[in-house]
Amino acid sequence: MAVLVGVIKRSEPLKGKIPARFPADTKQLPPLYIITPTYRRPEQLAEITRLGYTLKHVPNLFWLIVEDAESRTESVTRLLRQIDVPFVHLTAPMPAKYRKLKVKPRGVSNRNRGLQWIRANATEGVLYFADDDNTYNLQIFEQMRHIRKVGMWPVGLISKYGVSSPIVANGTISGFYDGWIGGRKYPIDMAGFAVSVKFLLSRPKAEMPFKAGYEEDGFLRSLDPLDMKEIDLLASNCTEILTWHTQSKKNPAALPLNLTKYGTTNLVKLTKILV
Amino acid sequence: MAVLVGVIKRSEPLKGKIPARFPADTKQLPPLYIITPTYRRPEQLAEITRLGYTLKHVPNLFWLIVEDAESRTESVTRLLRQIDVPFVHLTAPMPAKYRKLKVKPRGVSNRNRGLQWIRANATEGVLYFADDDNTYNLQIFEQMRHIRKVGMWPVGLISKYGVSSPIVANGTISGFYDGWIGGRKYPIDMAGFAVSVKFLLSRPKAEMPFKAGYEEDGFLRSLDPLDMKEIDLLASNCTEILTWHTQSKKNPAALPLNLTKYGTTNLVKLTKILV
Repeated sequence: MAVLVGVIKRSEPLKGKIPARFPADTKQLPPLYIITPTYRRPEQLAEITRLGYTLKHVPNLFWLIVEDAESRTESVTRLLRQIDVPFVHLTAPMPAKYRKLKVKPRGVSNRNRGLQWIRANATEGVLYFADDDNTYNLQIFEQMRHIRKVGMWPVGLISKYGVSSPIVANGTISGFYDGWIGGRKYPIDMAGFAVSVKFLLSRPKAEMPFKAGYEEDGFLRSLDPLDMKEIDLLASNCTEILTWHTQSKKNPAALPLNLTKYGTTNLVKLTKILV
Repeated sequence: MAVLVGVIKRSEPLKGKIPARFPADTKQLPPLYIITPTYRRPEQLAEITRLGYTLKHVPNLFWLIVEDAESRTESVTRLLRQIDVPFVHLTAPMPAKYRKLKVKPRGVSNRNRGLQWIRANATEGVLYFADDDNTYNLQIFEQMRHIRKVGMWPVGLISKYGVSSPIVANGTISGFYDGWIGGRKYPIDMAGFAVSVKFLLSRPKAEMPFKAGYEEDGFLRSLDPLDMKEIDLLASNCTEILTWHTQSKKNPAALPLNLTKYGTTNLVKLTKILV
């Protein structure tokens, strides 16, 4: 069961809750709802830290961190409070039947939990799925605020082409440039699109399928009817790279501490962080 | 030959140059000089982007970006201007004789160029080597400002132990916990120490050796005499992890664009960014 915690309680999204570091008039901006799926691993706290510092520059933003876990990780909650971006910390474990699969649909349970929260709490603004290991140029957040239905743009560091993007000629989409098409209607990366909250609410059944490789496509299809001509093209008509699919090297779990040798040192407290 | 460009020209470090987003009294803080070696690769712009957004939260900070290249990469200069952290953009190519080695001493030429700049331009504050792929908790920057000679602290995601740290018992260093000691006097990661500018200036010959694996140790040894007892222990006596040795997965160069097929689309401009 998903658990909700937060620094903000409200029925209206983010009104009067602009942190002091932003000018007062930023509260007029359409709010951004950033859904970040995450899961326990050695790199988790580091990834959340640097993503959080990017988001901390963006006014009128609300961060939905959703863990693939039965219960919230305490060190994650502590870190979110310290980073001080307005947030909720939710959980959404992957159902057991998908855990058995060889190629798991990672992050789907988390993102659908985020969508559920938005349906229950938001009325305007824009939602965006921001994985914790990607890199985001601040410009993309300002550009996505004014999306009418769905907005799309290029994502760097994807596949052999080095980028995944809508193909744009004369201001309209004529296809998609992506190293893997796989029969998808929308061959696009998770970091390459955002959706208006009002538009999501007008599609009560829209959600992400538990189908590895087809998460983005399935979600976007579930928003149909959606005319390609209605898609807003950001990043200067898709000629700039403002989001990057950076991936971190995975580290093995740390070896346990030799307590006989180090039992009276700082290492006891230090290595507890790594568990 | 190193080339210098900058948004700031001055003889006194950073005086009156605090960006408007910080309170006026932050200009009283000792300045931080952050030396970041970097080199051209597909992930470079992404890495600089997210490191820059972390540094942008820190008042009275001056960023020395030093490229291992003959001349400055234009897209890097543009990005640095856009990120808007006070910076200089320098170059320092690795000497040819080291390029031939199987295990190259990466970043040494860059860091020594940074030290040279500091010797010529700084009189107070603290210097820190911050690689572009690591992750930094903002707390470490505030803690390092007041280092007397050298400060040290733990770095996460290093080796089989998951962390590299001074071993501290009763408030003093009794050794180092690191997956690889290798005969080093200071078995510590580049992200795990900072040095007072005044102390550096009192050691006119101190620099980093071109010796892979021994860069940190050689630089710290070149600061001798330095008593272990004089080392400031940050991160609550080395019981917290405030820096992480995150590493990004390397991507191959992007395949060239098929111009016959895509010559009249956005992809022409888009893929030029990847070169």
